[in-house]
Amino acid sequence: MSAQGGQGAAADEVHGLAPERIRAVVRALGEGRVEQAVELVEPLHAADIADLIDLVGRPERRLLVEAMRGVLDPEVLAELSEEVLESVVEQLGPADVAAAVTELETDDAVDLLEDLDEAGQRQVLDAVPVPERAHIEAALAYPEDSAGRLMQRDLIAVPAFWTVGQTIDYMRESDDLPDEFYEIFVVDPTHRPIGTVPLNRIMRTKRPVLVQAIMEAEPIRVETDTDQEEVAYLFQQYDMASGAVVDASGRLIGVIMVDDVVDVIHEEAEEDILRLAGVSETDINASIRTTTQRRFIWLLLNLATAILASAVIAQFDAAIEKIVALAILMPIVASMGGNAGTQTMAVAVRGLATRELTVTNARRIVDKELVVGFFNGAVFALLVGLVAGFWFTDAALGGVIAAAMVINMLVAALSGILVPLGFDRMGVDPAVASSVFVTTITDVVGFLAFLGLAAGFLL
Amino acid sequence: MSAQGGQGAAADEVHGLAPERIRAVVRALGEGRVEQAVELVEPLHAADIADLIDLVGRPERRLLVEAMRGVLDPEVLAELSEEVLESVVEQLGPADVAAAVTELETDDAVDLLEDLDEAGQRQVLDAVPVPERAHIEAALAYPEDSAGRLMQRDLIAVPAFWTVGQTIDYMRESDDLPDEFYEIFVVDPTHRPIGTVPLNRIMRTKRPVLVQAIMEAEPIRVETDTDQEEVAYLFQQYDMASGAVVDASGRLIGVIMVDDVVDVIHEEAEEDILRLAGVSETDINASIRTTTQRRFIWLLLNLATAILASAVIAQFDAAIEKIVALAILMPIVASMGGNAGTQTMAVAVRGLATRELTVTNARRIVDKELVVGFFNGAVFALLVGLVAGFWFTDAALGGVIAAAMVINMLVAALSGILVPLGFDRMGVDPAVASSVFVTTITDVVGFLAFLGLAAGFLL
Repeated sequence: MSAQGGQGAAADEVHGLAPERIRAVVRALGEGRVEQAVELVEPLHAADIADLIDLVGRPERRLLVEAMRGVLDPEVLAELSEEVLESVVEQLGPADVAAAVTELETDDAVDLLEDLDEAGQRQVLDAVPVPERAHIEAALAYPEDSAGRLMQRDLIAVPAFWTVGQTIDYMRESDDLPDEFYEIFVVDPTHRPIGTVPLNRIMRTKRPVLVQAIMEAEPIRVETDTDQEEVAYLFQQYDMASGAVVDASGRLIGVIMVDDVVDVIHEEAEEDILRLAGVSETDINASIRTTTQRRFIWLLLNLATAILASAVIAQFDAAIEKIVALAILMPIVASMGGNAGTQTMAVAVRGLATRELTVTNARRIVDKELVVGFFNGAVFALLVGLVAGFWFTDAALGGVIAAAMVINMLVAALSGILVPLGFDRMGVDPAVASSVFVTTITDVVGFLAFLGLAAGFLL
Repeated sequence: MSAQGGQGAAADEVHGLAPERIRAVVRALGEGRVEQAVELVEPLHAADIADLIDLVGRPERRLLVEAMRGVLDPEVLAELSEEVLESVVEQLGPADVAAAVTELETDDAVDLLEDLDEAGQRQVLDAVPVPERAHIEAALAYPEDSAGRLMQRDLIAVPAFWTVGQTIDYMRESDDLPDEFYEIFVVDPTHRPIGTVPLNRIMRTKRPVLVQAIMEAEPIRVETDTDQEEVAYLFQQYDMASGAVVDASGRLIGVIMVDDVVDVIHEEAEEDILRLAGVSETDINASIRTTTQRRFIWLLLNLATAILASAVIAQFDAAIEKIVALAILMPIVASMGGNAGTQTMAVAVRGLATRELTVTNARRIVDKELVVGFFNGAVFALLVGLVAGFWFTDAALGGVIAAAMVINMLVAALSGILVPLGFDRMGVDPAVASSVFVTTITDVVGFLAFLGLAAGFLL
């Protein structure tokens, strides 16, 4: 949550990060007009300042952070990208970072600290005053990407027998309210949530009415160790603005706000996109070293599968030596299969992520993909067969590539849907490994079908 | 917005769609126990009922919709996937659909209607009473995917000189309040928004205080024709729960709620994922015909690029005839380049979408990608060179493939970042066309570099 200006009329805040402003800041820093740079940066919203620090080069970043030491909104640190945060934290030192962490709400503090390595986390935490530290450590004890890490502890819970008037008076008198909230929770004597009341409903209702009478019963609850992907699903499915978090015995211990869920949705979609492209967790600000290493693994895996495909081709070296057209045409069959498989796989991976593809309709979707694969396979077999037949004035060659194309398009459709389904059933994220499996299958089958049929019928 | 149960204590609503329940519903429908099926479905949340209708097969869907005619929550229609909605609307007929549309909030009604074709839209709209129809038609007049279509018109706006007490009384007395809201807007005499006050702040403040004194000045405004992607960006960047929509002269005419933005974020991420995989707008429930057609275009484009690559190979048929190992090894160079290019491209496309890649840092990111490409290129050149050299006991061949690999990995890095940047600068969505361009470049360069060097040095 961003504490936009806090109570009272906020100063004129500039929203949006115009490229001209970034250029002006960079120029001012380059020419040693540090104070002027700070003046340009300070009126910006914390999220925009964080973006600016992410965007500028390393030397400008150091200058700017140094100049803003002491006036830097703690929110800015919470919004920095992981790699940039690490270097900024190193520059500021544990004492200044701890001061910022202490000011943040628990969920933001956790968000910041979980981006640091363990030693860095420890150093900062040791400099945080005990009460805040205890809260943060409790949150960090929950698994990564869990509801426990997303929640904030400040919330308003009232008993069912309170009236609307009592509730309003309680809120007016209490100092320790959360920065933002959209609903209050109604709890039973054991502090289990039994209902929620949106604030607007409290406002519209006469003071003597019991909260019990206007609450939504059976609120949606998540446990502290629920995965954030599940939390995001619930918020989206049920149009929630905030949600109750309960401990193992069902007691209300925190609340998750929709703005943090929005970040989760972004993060999870990002992860899926990058994983499908064979890039494991990364961001555009990662160092050359990190980037090279993370991509290396996937490229190595790809090399292994490429060599496998080459080994398949090698089985048919005699055929290729006799008919060099085979070497010329074989990438077409593999490439079309790879593309068709990737199409199906992307739809399947998204369907699994959004729960539009489930055990209930899996069989029907598999059947559909097969039919689609057959139709497109038939059309492209005809097209490719004609192209190849005329190109090399060899009708038999056209027939062979057409047959190989149908086979590979069917295999592409099947593997495009079954590979993600299989990974999902095994509890493996289908976005991670599906891509390389599907294209390996379509490459190998493509070369095997085409060269095999050619060796059988054309020699 | 889902009107979860409305005012007063809601009935026990079942959240979540257990597979057992779906199976029970399907079984009941199959055995003609229609009433029992409806009993199983009715307690579910509208979003879950919609999912269930999406998930079951066509015959079960028809039976269920028929059985629920009259008791179907209008929200269910608003939550159906596009293809399923079309068939359900056809089954229900314009009168029943119009009744549902009339009950929905404008933004949901629009969301439903925009999924129908023009004739279907017209038929339904003609059966909607005039006042609601006018609102809906006004919203439909805004461009697709614009803020105007996302907004709802019901909102609370008060003048700056009102007190908190006046504001609360106004809300208690007004019948025509929106279903859900998190903040009220403060407007000037010309109805331009000059501030917002979160509901919780109104609750905490004493009655005589002026709203002016507690409002957040300079609220974020979007115009009616702002693209929904921009809206989603603003909500995420500034942690907003709702946002003001203004007309061209700056007057407040609507409000966008975060739950609708959550759907937009999902939709946009989905689009990017599918486009990168060469699947244009589609959903898993699309018919065989639609699916086949939509994928066909991309496959046709891919066929053209595959034939281009084959034409490159064909230039070296003499070399392949002499050294068949070239045919065996050439897919490795192309495939590694394709993978490396896709990795870089995915990061670039996401960076552009999330504004982490901008004119400010483009040059630095391009440089970084080149260095990463060089490092990984060098390592894989060595690996592949050794594999090829030993496999065919031909050191020169190893050298040639190593050199080709370095070239193609550098080209992959460059095209992976420059192609999306170029499309973005031209105003074309980089997610749509980058993939096919990048892999075409890496295929062509891969074959050209490897076969060209081989023809030059090995013959």
